[in-house]
Amino acid sequence: MLSTLSFFTGLRLLRREGKKSYGLFILTLALLAACAASTVRAQSIAIVGGTIIDGNGGEPIAGGVVLVEDRIIKAAGKRDAVRIPAKARVIQAQGKYVMPGMMDANISLGTAYSVESVLVYVNGHSTQMHDMALEGAQTALKSGLTTLFVILGPLPALKDLRDEINSGRSVGSRLFISSNIVGFTGVLGDDFNKEGKAVVAAPTLKRVNDIWEQGVGPELLYMTPEQVRVRMREFLARGVDFVKYGVNEHVSPFIAFSPDVQKAIVEETHRAGKIVKTHTMTVEGIKMALEAGADTLHHCEVTGPVPIPPETLQLMAARRIPCSVLALTDEYLQDTRGHVSNTPVVNSIMDVNVRNMVKAGVNLLLGTDTNISDPNMIQSEYAKKVMSSRYWPRKIGEAHFLWLKAMSQKGLAPMKGLQAATRNVAEAHHLLDRLGTLEAGKLADLVILDANPLEDVENYRRIHAVMKEGRMVER
Amino acid sequence: MLSTLSFFTGLRLLRREGKKSYGLFILTLALLAACAASTVRAQSIAIVGGTIIDGNGGEPIAGGVVLVEDRIIKAAGKRDAVRIPAKARVIQAQGKYVMPGMMDANISLGTAYSVESVLVYVNGHSTQMHDMALEGAQTALKSGLTTLFVILGPLPALKDLRDEINSGRSVGSRLFISSNIVGFTGVLGDDFNKEGKAVVAAPTLKRVNDIWEQGVGPELLYMTPEQVRVRMREFLARGVDFVKYGVNEHVSPFIAFSPDVQKAIVEETHRAGKIVKTHTMTVEGIKMALEAGADTLHHCEVTGPVPIPPETLQLMAARRIPCSVLALTDEYLQDTRGHVSNTPVVNSIMDVNVRNMVKAGVNLLLGTDTNISDPNMIQSEYAKKVMSSRYWPRKIGEAHFLWLKAMSQKGLAPMKGLQAATRNVAEAHHLLDRLGTLEAGKLADLVILDANPLEDVENYRRIHAVMKEGRMVER
Amino acid sequence: MLSTLSFFTGLRLLRREGKKSYGLFILTLALLAACAASTVRAQSIAIVGGTIIDGNGGEPIAGGVVLVEDRIIKAAGKRDAVRIPAKARVIQAQGKYVMPGMMDANISLGTAYSVESVLVYVNGHSTQMHDMALEGAQTALKSGLTTLFVILGPLPALKDLRDEINSGRSVGSRLFISSNIVGFTGVLGDDFNKEGKAVVAAPTLKRVNDIWEQGVGPELLYMTPEQVRVRMREFLARGVDFVKYGVNEHVSPFIAFSPDVQKAIVEETHRAGKIVKTHTMTVEGIKMALEAGADTLHHCEVTGPVPIPPETLQLMAARRIPCSVLALTDEYLQDTRGHVSNTPVVNSIMDVNVRNMVKAGVNLLLGTDTNISDPNMIQSEYAKKVMSSRYWPRKIGEAHFLWLKAMSQKGLAPMKGLQAATRNVAEAHHLLDRLGTLEAGKLADLVILDANPLEDVENYRRIHAVMKEGRMVER
Amino acid sequence: MLSTLSFFTGLRLLRREGKKSYGLFILTLALLAACAASTVRAQSIAIVGGTIIDGNGGEPIAGGVVLVEDRIIKAAGKRDAVRIPAKARVIQAQGKYVMPGMMDANISLGTAYSVESVLVYVNGHSTQMHDMALEGAQTALKSGLTTLFVILGPLPALKDLRDEINSGRSVGSRLFISSNIVGFTGVLGDDFNKEGKAVVAAPTLKRVNDIWEQGVGPELLYMTPEQVRVRMREFLARGVDFVKYGVNEHVSPFIAFSPDVQKAIVEETHRAGKIVKTHTMTVEGIKMALEAGADTLHHCEVTGPVPIPPETLQLMAARRIPCSVLALTDEYLQDTRGHVSNTPVVNSIMDVNVRNMVKAGVNLLLGTDTNISDPNMIQSEYAKKVMSSRYWPRKIGEAHFLWLKAMSQKGLAPMKGLQAATRNVAEAHHLLDRLGTLEAGKLADLVILDANPLEDVENYRRIHAVMKEGRMVER
Repeated sequence: MLSTLSFFTGLRLLRREGKKSYGLFILTLALLAACAASTVRAQSIAIVGGTIIDGNGGEPIAGGVVLVEDRIIKAAGKRDAVRIPAKARVIQAQGKYVMPGMMDANISLGTAYSVESVLVYVNGHSTQMHDMALEGAQTALKSGLTTLFVILGPLPALKDLRDEINSGRSVGSRLFISSNIVGFTGVLGDDFNKEGKAVVAAPTLKRVNDIWEQGVGPELLYMTPEQVRVRMREFLARGVDFVKYGVNEHVSPFIAFSPDVQKAIVEETHRAGKIVKTHTMTVEGIKMALEAGADTLHHCEVTGPVPIPPETLQLMAARRIPCSVLALTDEYLQDTRGHVSNTPVVNSIMDVNVRNMVKAGVNLLLGTDTNISDPNMIQSEYAKKVMSSRYWPRKIGEAHFLWLKAMSQKGLAPMKGLQAATRNVAEAHHLLDRLGTLEAGKLADLVILDANPLEDVENYRRIHAVMKEGRMVER
Repeated sequence: MLSTLSFFTGLRLLRREGKKSYGLFILTLALLAACAASTVRAQSIAIVGGTIIDGNGGEPIAGGVVLVEDRIIKAAGKRDAVRIPAKARVIQAQGKYVMPGMMDANISLGTAYSVESVLVYVNGHSTQMHDMALEGAQTALKSGLTTLFVILGPLPALKDLRDEINSGRSVGSRLFISSNIVGFTGVLGDDFNKEGKAVVAAPTLKRVNDIWEQGVGPELLYMTPEQVRVRMREFLARGVDFVKYGVNEHVSPFIAFSPDVQKAIVEETHRAGKIVKTHTMTVEGIKMALEAGADTLHHCEVTGPVPIPPETLQLMAARRIPCSVLALTDEYLQDTRGHVSNTPVVNSIMDVNVRNMVKAGVNLLLGTDTNISDPNMIQSEYAKKVMSSRYWPRKIGEAHFLWLKAMSQKGLAPMKGLQAATRNVAEAHHLLDRLGTLEAGKLADLVILDANPLEDVENYRRIHAVMKEGRMVER
Repeated sequence: MLSTLSFFTGLRLLRREGKKSYGLFILTLALLAACAASTVRAQSIAIVGGTIIDGNGGEPIAGGVVLVEDRIIKAAGKRDAVRIPAKARVIQAQGKYVMPGMMDANISLGTAYSVESVLVYVNGHSTQMHDMALEGAQTALKSGLTTLFVILGPLPALKDLRDEINSGRSVGSRLFISSNIVGFTGVLGDDFNKEGKAVVAAPTLKRVNDIWEQGVGPELLYMTPEQVRVRMREFLARGVDFVKYGVNEHVSPFIAFSPDVQKAIVEETHRAGKIVKTHTMTVEGIKMALEAGADTLHHCEVTGPVPIPPETLQLMAARRIPCSVLALTDEYLQDTRGHVSNTPVVNSIMDVNVRNMVKAGVNLLLGTDTNISDPNMIQSEYAKKVMSSRYWPRKIGEAHFLWLKAMSQKGLAPMKGLQAATRNVAEAHHLLDRLGTLEAGKLADLVILDANPLEDVENYRRIHAVMKEGRMVER
Repeated sequence: MLSTLSFFTGLRLLRREGKKSYGLFILTLALLAACAASTVRAQSIAIVGGTIIDGNGGEPIAGGVVLVEDRIIKAAGKRDAVRIPAKARVIQAQGKYVMPGMMDANISLGTAYSVESVLVYVNGHSTQMHDMALEGAQTALKSGLTTLFVILGPLPALKDLRDEINSGRSVGSRLFISSNIVGFTGVLGDDFNKEGKAVVAAPTLKRVNDIWEQGVGPELLYMTPEQVRVRMREFLARGVDFVKYGVNEHVSPFIAFSPDVQKAIVEETHRAGKIVKTHTMTVEGIKMALEAGADTLHHCEVTGPVPIPPETLQLMAARRIPCSVLALTDEYLQDTRGHVSNTPVVNSIMDVNVRNMVKAGVNLLLGTDTNISDPNMIQSEYAKKVMSSRYWPRKIGEAHFLWLKAMSQKGLAPMKGLQAATRNVAEAHHLLDRLGTLEAGKLADLVILDANPLEDVENYRRIHAVMKEGRMVER
């Protein structure tokens, strides 16, 4: 049934979104559907007796039932409202808490590699990078993240990995991918690695960067809107699920694109039925992203030494623009404020911004900005420089727990925290009819916890089981 | 008489410009006037018999007379239209050509110093820098440049030098100055010198950069329009004659300021009665400068590998925005196209852009982007890196001759070339009632050439005499 | 017959050398013998009618015969002194010149790689490095170099290549190998590559450098003579054919080892029956090498800005220490003296030194110091820095011709030049009973030229045929 | 009387040392004498009642008297053995301890400056450097160091400062100076500062380095013994009080000079009547210094990762070669062993070496290797790199107290520790007849402590008074 359903859902989405000028992720979901069709019919599963926190923000349902058939939730609700088929496999969840699978709106699999890793990769031995990325996706899944939005990486490898996981050939978090942050350099370019140039031959540098840049690298910074449109159309045809572009440069406050070029990027992406994420570093960058019509903001609380002013916060809240933040815990802030090598001012402004965003009711998303890293890299001089403590805590499988804790510390209500990690991300990516809550008809992504996450944010770590698309994940 | 006249002119300007919201250079001219008042009354001087090319673009007047009294041109025209006072000193100019003093719209006195020079300067021994800058202004004057717009340098030293020269205490080209290009770092910051950081102590770095930045340095890149307005008002109160801001970063295609911030910079400068120059590096940068209401563009033909498209050229021409260009000669282009270390693509696009600007009738200005340099610097490793051949030909006293030659090669008509170096610059800076042509009532800045510059552009080098404010310059 | 002969020769050598305390290259030659035994019996070959320049310095023999059986020269002499077997294959060499195969006393296969190549190599994909090294050995052979002394490279790869070529499995110049220059760093250490450290992880750096250093790296600089002896014994047991040690640091005038340590290195190497080469950079370094009892000097004319004084030259001549020099041609010296990036003083001292060595009758060897290079490397920033014009002309297959030309320009008599490239090298390495001249009983390594190399040094390039161990080389 | 005495002493020394081929510091002492002659006759001073520890190693004399007249000790001994003149000023020292003024055998005033300081200095504004160096000499004096051997600095400034202090015009520790460590680069050369090259023009670099190098810089590394002799003779004629040469390179294990060159340096220095200090970094370096006939070793416990073997220790002890060591306290060793950026192995070997030297009875000297530093420097990136914690504790005025503590921790007997900081240093520099102990006829340099330093090494810090040449130092 799923395959047909998905197929029709796809068509329906195409139709509906066609009007709205974008129909996100259709092909990816269709692919899922096609793969599912070729597998044997799975047993019904009933998760019985747990407290269901369905992600819609209402009162949790004690002693509820989630009924899963194939990959789909058939029902989720009170015990007496759900008919459990006789043949269903019953999972007892008394005393447990059942919530939607978590979703990370901004993660990377394959950026901050060492020159060593990169060279090995581009010399044709990509198993190392593939294996590291797959391990990242598996670690994420086991820790409750059922969906990842991968904003950066080498496109050929990411596509292979996405198709491998999303078709069920490998186990891991569901992946939606992009390749380059539009306007950025590749992994051995100035945005990521200034050292490589000194030792890597020019042809290799170009070969490496081309793989990451996919035609939307830094040469776009010189172009007119029409020229950028041509590049965007080519890029969108290469199999990315969404686009992220640099409103600002990677780490500096410089602006990458004029308003006209930003509009061109957004329009072309929407025309291709995909959403547009943005990389901002300044208050003005946020405003420009909003004006350009971008769909999401990321690490939008990073605004250098200048806090986001009230009028901008109100604008963000009014527009309901989804916004992923990095969310530094109190412990982290206290620790690093004393460090010479860190940027305490920027950290404290990040803190202030997130608190103000919570108060202003900005539409917040979990987005950890984590990355997988070559183990060798940690010991290189380069890593010692770039891997400041600001990045260290953001480890896949750990960072989202810290995020939930940090947001709690900053005043986000427990239920809103849970939604930021589930429903909000699905909605932000126009995937709410398939993902993000425990409701009939949605893909059966869920996490069973041993204790109530709404009572204590540390309870997110107490994972009893993870289900992705109706299958229990071995942990 | 001059002093009174100037004073009233100043008042009149203030009144008139008050309505238009800016009254440029009033204080500077008033200062000139005040100084003039304290000097002894000078003799009348009649330059008789030369061909007058008055800068207004009309037919040259053969056998004409320019009559100068004090610092002012009393008359310029046909021999029989000018009454030469009996007591006037007569300068025979038969066979000569008399043209307005040339004006450089974009020059720097004190940027690309070596760390060595800078450290000597900031340790209180600024005579070296003062002497180098004065020498630059003298070299310029002797080669026919009677007015310079100094876009960059250490404000305290530039102010002293400006006041010293403009009051007549020292001989040199008349100076109008700014300090920092708004948004740029100081001379030891990333925009100019990445090496200094490695060896200069942080307090010294800050002390040096503060002198150049004058509160409008790179921290503005993070700010909101309102925050930038506050900084601009403070900066404008510090004695600069005009403002130049970075639309783009110094050498990269990144954009420095959002449209709103650019408008804030322009409005605050206009409110202070001064004009706004811009530093652009991309086509989009040019368009943003136009939209922000900037008064002039500089090196606007530098647009990386992307030529300025026809519609932008038309916009520039229609707006009559004054535009200084660097103008590479054919010889230079041929020479460097073969160099590995150069950027032949960018050079050839510069060439294409200037040719197209000539065809489109863009309002062109002489602006050499020359700089004075510490002689030590030329031998440093740093200099070898930054002083690529792109910069080398731009030597004070030489570069404007090359500019006129290059523009001739690119198809600019002889008379338009002469105007680009005289009248256009005066008009662009709202100084046409005082400078830029040989007309009664203007300051007596003129160059007497041995041969006709309209016949052969090399004749600009054949300087017979230079007069600045009614005084012959010793050469 | 060869195999038996070789075997007994080996035994005899072992016995004889045992007394003299070293019996060089026995195992290598025995290996050759063993391999030969397993091949089919080869035909006799008679090279008839050419002028034989046998390498012993006597008058060339016009219309001579060289008779080869299996891998061995059976006879070489006047036509009537040699009985040509009926079944022999006759090669007509009328008008040709037959000389011994040339030998390069100082070459490297695997040093100046790019970080990129090195990383690919150490990640287990060593075919690239193997292929480049093999290509180098083939190029050398085709251009008349039948034997190479490889002073530097990754030992495991060099051993494989040596065994592969010397056993006849691959075609290439006969190889005698070492690994590290004792006291130097590995290929990613300071002696060869300062950039690698910035980008390569510490464990990889160590892994790479260990492969090159083989336990005799820079840590020896701290050690006492006894400690160094232990390391040397371990190193000598790893399959190197000879030892080269740094008297001086790689490129600076610093001295690497005290006299006592140098003596320890020499004694241990002699005890193992191998010869000791030296790397010197100063006059004092040469003297210390002599005092330590080293067997050969290399690039001994590189003495910075201080020429070798007469007394040292006399010492070198009296000791008959074999000495390979780099030999810059007049053309090269004239060209580079004008280069800013070069060191004209050092070059001109090199020139003076070689001329003085010729006059003093120093025992000179061909030693090109060539290296194979990853083609990518030439385009890296690193290569641009290290590959100054001083190194560029030294390309495998070309450098020995330039060397012979340069030595001729410096006054070396034609016959002495030929011996420097043949007999002297064999003698210097204690291989004169097997290699270096055209005499009965020696391995049949020879070059047939179309013109007389003693008349014009350019005639070395006119190679008609190359024979190595009795087999004609396909060119 | 002093002046005459000194003068004759000088002559006598000259005569005696003439035979022995060196007569150290005669001119300096004669200068002292000459200056003293021109001052008014000073009162006798009697320090009465303290415990005298005279530096000769015998039992301290309780309730003793030290009688000083002019600058000279007239008597030191038991109360009843000394006749106190009636007119003598009596200083009560009951309960106090009187010891000789301390002497630092290896200190620097003017090496590790920032590029900033150096540039200011060489642009003619040397007051900053002079003032810093003078402040260092004053701090040293107030903390009980009455004599310093300054091994490194800009010679013109050091000579001025030495003459100024030693003639009594300024107050500070008595200075004996050298300039360059023979073979090292100047302060902006590779031995001290690799960053300067990137930013300082070549002519300035040369000008700076020449001031420090004084003709005995790194070009000597290429020279023959005879060439080095010429340079040494010129250097010795420039007013240095002693010579220090690099046996090893500054921080690496490389050897700077061949045995023959080292002997040349030693012989020429002895011929000029001066002593030779050495800079070593390896065990072999120590042995070479001994063989060359050097007079002192410095930081001779720094031998990289290789401990000094017993036979070398015995050699050092047998030769009674004076040896200054850096002496890390237990606290320091424990602290830094945990640091990543440090070299725990080298530190622990330093510790082992010093302990073994104590056991072997090596002739130890206080030598702190302290330096004065431009306060700006501490904040530069350069400083952060070079000023590892290995250097930090070595602050003038503090380091000798830590040294005495460390040596106590390493097992040096209390009396031997005191002698290492007094008598041994005087003897090592052939100054024992003038300095180093409390004995009649010697210059009256002494320290009065509030508590017994032989009981608790911390009591060296409890300084009650310092007398230098008969004058009480204001503290």
